[in-house]
Amino acid sequence: MKFNLGCQLSYQVDSWSTFVFNLRVVETNYQKLLNELLEISPDIEIDEYYSPFSENRYFRLNVPANTRLQLSYWAKVEMSHYYGDPGTIAEVAPADLPVEMLHYLYPSRYCQSDRLLRLADSEFGHLEPGYSRVTAICNWIYEKVIYLYGSSNPHTSAYDTATERQGVCRDFAHLGIAFCRALNIPARFVSAYAYGLEPPDFHACFEAYLGDRWYLFDATRRAPQNGLIRIGTGQDASDVSLSTIFGAVQMQEMKVFVEYLPASTATSDEIPQLTTKAIAIS
Amino acid sequence: MKFNLGCQLSYQVDSWSTFVFNLRVVETNYQKLLNELLEISPDIEIDEYYSPFSENRYFRLNVPANTRLQLSYWAKVEMSHYYGDPGTIAEVAPADLPVEMLHYLYPSRYCQSDRLLRLADSEFGHLEPGYSRVTAICNWIYEKVIYLYGSSNPHTSAYDTATERQGVCRDFAHLGIAFCRALNIPARFVSAYAYGLEPPDFHACFEAYLGDRWYLFDATRRAPQNGLIRIGTGQDASDVSLSTIFGAVQMQEMKVFVEYLPASTATSDEIPQLTTKAIAIS
Amino acid sequence: MKFNLGCQLSYQVDSWSTFVFNLRVVETNYQKLLNELLEISPDIEIDEYYSPFSENRYFRLNVPANTRLQLSYWAKVEMSHYYGDPGTIAEVAPADLPVEMLHYLYPSRYCQSDRLLRLADSEFGHLEPGYSRVTAICNWIYEKVIYLYGSSNPHTSAYDTATERQGVCRDFAHLGIAFCRALNIPARFVSAYAYGLEPPDFHACFEAYLGDRWYLFDATRRAPQNGLIRIGTGQDASDVSLSTIFGAVQMQEMKVFVEYLPASTATSDEIPQLTTKAIAIS
Amino acid sequence: MKFNLGCQLSYQVDSWSTFVFNLRVVETNYQKLLNELLEISPDIEIDEYYSPFSENRYFRLNVPANTRLQLSYWAKVEMSHYYGDPGTIAEVAPADLPVEMLHYLYPSRYCQSDRLLRLADSEFGHLEPGYSRVTAICNWIYEKVIYLYGSSNPHTSAYDTATERQGVCRDFAHLGIAFCRALNIPARFVSAYAYGLEPPDFHACFEAYLGDRWYLFDATRRAPQNGLIRIGTGQDASDVSLSTIFGAVQMQEMKVFVEYLPASTATSDEIPQLTTKAIAIS
Repeated sequence: MKFNLGCQLSYQVDSWSTFVFNLRVVETNYQKLLNELLEISPDIEIDEYYSPFSENRYFRLNVPANTRLQLSYWAKVEMSHYYGDPGTIAEVAPADLPVEMLHYLYPSRYCQSDRLLRLADSEFGHLEPGYSRVTAICNWIYEKVIYLYGSSNPHTSAYDTATERQGVCRDFAHLGIAFCRALNIPARFVSAYAYGLEPPDFHACFEAYLGDRWYLFDATRRAPQNGLIRIGTGQDASDVSLSTIFGAVQMQEMKVFVEYLPASTATSDEIPQLTTKAIAIS
Repeated sequence: MKFNLGCQLSYQVDSWSTFVFNLRVVETNYQKLLNELLEISPDIEIDEYYSPFSENRYFRLNVPANTRLQLSYWAKVEMSHYYGDPGTIAEVAPADLPVEMLHYLYPSRYCQSDRLLRLADSEFGHLEPGYSRVTAICNWIYEKVIYLYGSSNPHTSAYDTATERQGVCRDFAHLGIAFCRALNIPARFVSAYAYGLEPPDFHACFEAYLGDRWYLFDATRRAPQNGLIRIGTGQDASDVSLSTIFGAVQMQEMKVFVEYLPASTATSDEIPQLTTKAIAIS
Repeated sequence: MKFNLGCQLSYQVDSWSTFVFNLRVVETNYQKLLNELLEISPDIEIDEYYSPFSENRYFRLNVPANTRLQLSYWAKVEMSHYYGDPGTIAEVAPADLPVEMLHYLYPSRYCQSDRLLRLADSEFGHLEPGYSRVTAICNWIYEKVIYLYGSSNPHTSAYDTATERQGVCRDFAHLGIAFCRALNIPARFVSAYAYGLEPPDFHACFEAYLGDRWYLFDATRRAPQNGLIRIGTGQDASDVSLSTIFGAVQMQEMKVFVEYLPASTATSDEIPQLTTKAIAIS
Repeated sequence: MKFNLGCQLSYQVDSWSTFVFNLRVVETNYQKLLNELLEISPDIEIDEYYSPFSENRYFRLNVPANTRLQLSYWAKVEMSHYYGDPGTIAEVAPADLPVEMLHYLYPSRYCQSDRLLRLADSEFGHLEPGYSRVTAICNWIYEKVIYLYGSSNPHTSAYDTATERQGVCRDFAHLGIAFCRALNIPARFVSAYAYGLEPPDFHACFEAYLGDRWYLFDATRRAPQNGLIRIGTGQDASDVSLSTIFGAVQMQEMKVFVEYLPASTATSDEIPQLTTKAIAIS
């Protein structure tokens, strides 16, 4: 299924400043980039790079003082999806994990799994291991944490959300990740464009490594999983910030859009909708 | 200068368990591995790997229940050192940093630089940028934080240590890293064997990226910097834990040794000693 | 029912030091002090006082340097108990609370009820108000928090225990208090001698104000409620510390004992035992 | 010196709600209430009370649903002041403190002095005990903490402010109190009307017990100390909240005013101004 997506950002730059953006979509086996346009005004050199730690597509801008920076991004993407059978997807023991996954078992800034071991064990330790246990984590979060704009801030972490029980998509993702790691399930943060999100915004969810791949989970239930288009992955939000800014800058405007381009031949899996199927896009 | 070093560890393994060890020294331009021996008893297959995120030499062991696991490591290492002139080493602005360094500006589990911005600015913001500013950070930590065994625990982070003012080498390193990142200086955690440490133990210090390389800093002043032999680097201690254990295991014994092998032709730089020179081993 | 109880404490006092002790039992309508003996060696003047904030029986000692302080306390106490019917005891709305109870709705050092509002609401908000809701809180704590010596420290608070799910009697009490306050039920900390506690030690539990009095709750289930003899009450442990010490002091020994003195005519209510009846001693 | 002061508050009350207000000024030796008027609309019974823990003048209102509650308070106050000589005011050792002051050495919700012991000792432990040491604490806070509206929230505590170095008057007071307690100086929170505060608002500062009385300190330097008119005192802000609200309520308006009424015969001490003299109003 195909999507048009993108964003428009503008900033008032008061001092000479450096921006690191992470807002372009990646290409994966399940996510094809058909077309893409990135426009910056004024015309500033774009320093593109991939982190050695991921395939995220960062770019850096150095912007002079007293500039109104405008950034416009548009992409056309074709998503296919890997659909698995939740009933047959197993957890992988640390003994058998591909070694590059071990990193995603460790605690990180916003996912202090080391401090949530007993809580995770008490709530989920008795459940059957496998895909369904991560689903149970998402259900727990959906039921017990209130989605509330402005209820958290950039310092809020999974440790806080576990107790304070309120947050936004980023907090839901952090808590899901922390619970997974506390149960020895590798988990990572996903930033994404999300079809159907109201109001339109950048979105965050998470992936857990199960069976032989990364499966997508979204405890917020605010957008269909097969309408998510991946921007970046990382240990947590600190790795995939939309923009990291060094300097005196005011954001002035942010618009995000995601448009579904229906095909005349679409099957039922090819329509963006909430699903209980196991779904992978990485 | 040459060192013999190593460790002996033993564990009582009660359940079937997985260990991830990170205790072998790495090879760098300044650190040559002349010889090495790793012995495991009972004879268990060693699953060696490098993380995609570092050159650290992890290995994984899967150990049956009711085993007494014994591990003995010995290495002979030759260190040369890069010595720089502290007076000429500059900080590198985010605009000019090699892109792979940007990762080391982000907050991590034990180095919440995002919450220490004002403290770092208030204490160090007015100082001349450069190597000397990181030295000032180390002096501040040395003077204001008490080195005290048992005063911290595995959950203790830089945010705590900034206020509670007590800790061990790992806490000193985390605080130094967090301050550096808060000032936009890339910094990373270093686990090491340390000549002259009393009592002998694994050691932790940190590296800051300045000029064109990673310089070594140790705010504890408990061991000569040129007597440090690197095991691993990471965002913080969570990446380079000596051992990450999945299962029911009791540590029974840990011995660490580092022996200096004097050469008849040693210059003064070739004797392990505290120094105010800028020193790099990465 | 009658009890003999007491404690023996000894300290090595290195510098001139001040002690504030809170270990003598109080007298209430339900707790009669038949006899009491407090011995201090060396012979130091005892500065007894009641706090303006409670009826706790503090005493202060000023002890010279290089002293071995020995303290021996013995009391004979007769407990009667108010037994209520759990099914008929209501919560009291803030509108109707006696004004001196409002204080016990506020957050305190170890009971940060302001940060547990949503957690309390999510877990207990839907339950029928009344005595049974506080029982539900105790059951929750008993089931979800592990009683483990050494798992918490003097800084551990209800906010931590809610997530880390381990602690000792003091932590169980703090969490119960915090949940009650978050639901607008006045609650306070109780320090006590406890018959049947194994190993013998000082004990902590809590009281909630319901109906027209303070009812006793102990989420640890480690001692019969009618075998508790009250020492002090306060907002939390900071108010009723067994000993607050100003100076360089080492505790060397602590022994606590509580002995039940059976009466030939005891009814079943007059034997120390776990009960589901509502019980008050204040 | 005389002041007119007061406030106007209005609330939209959606559900049946209980308010506990603490906004009337107290009478002390140094603070005489010449006249006072409290008007509530609609006409609701006022349940006045003094806490057993303080002389604060709380009152409670029970308000029906769908009410617009308006509250208007006016008072005319005459302040005299106790002026002491900072050079001669000593700290009082715990051994010699009046017993009712010991309570103000204990940690509280927002003043976790138990976690700031080493920080306080490291920054102020070497200073001469006495009034000047509390002045040094205030100077430290004034210099290192930025006064910034919106930089803290109702959960922010001294532990946070010590590190995050930003806050408002309440945070400045909490940090001053926590440092004092960590040095064994009794300290308490003071809510007040403040002449000269821009913009007009309720104010917070603190008192430390030194010599034989409570001296007033204000680390914000935003209002003259002799223009402060006391509302309440407590362990921290949780005891003297302007309004504690149980129910669904929106604040709609808050106006505060303090007017100095100059006397033709005023000496220089009788004009509101910043001073370095030791000043007491309790």
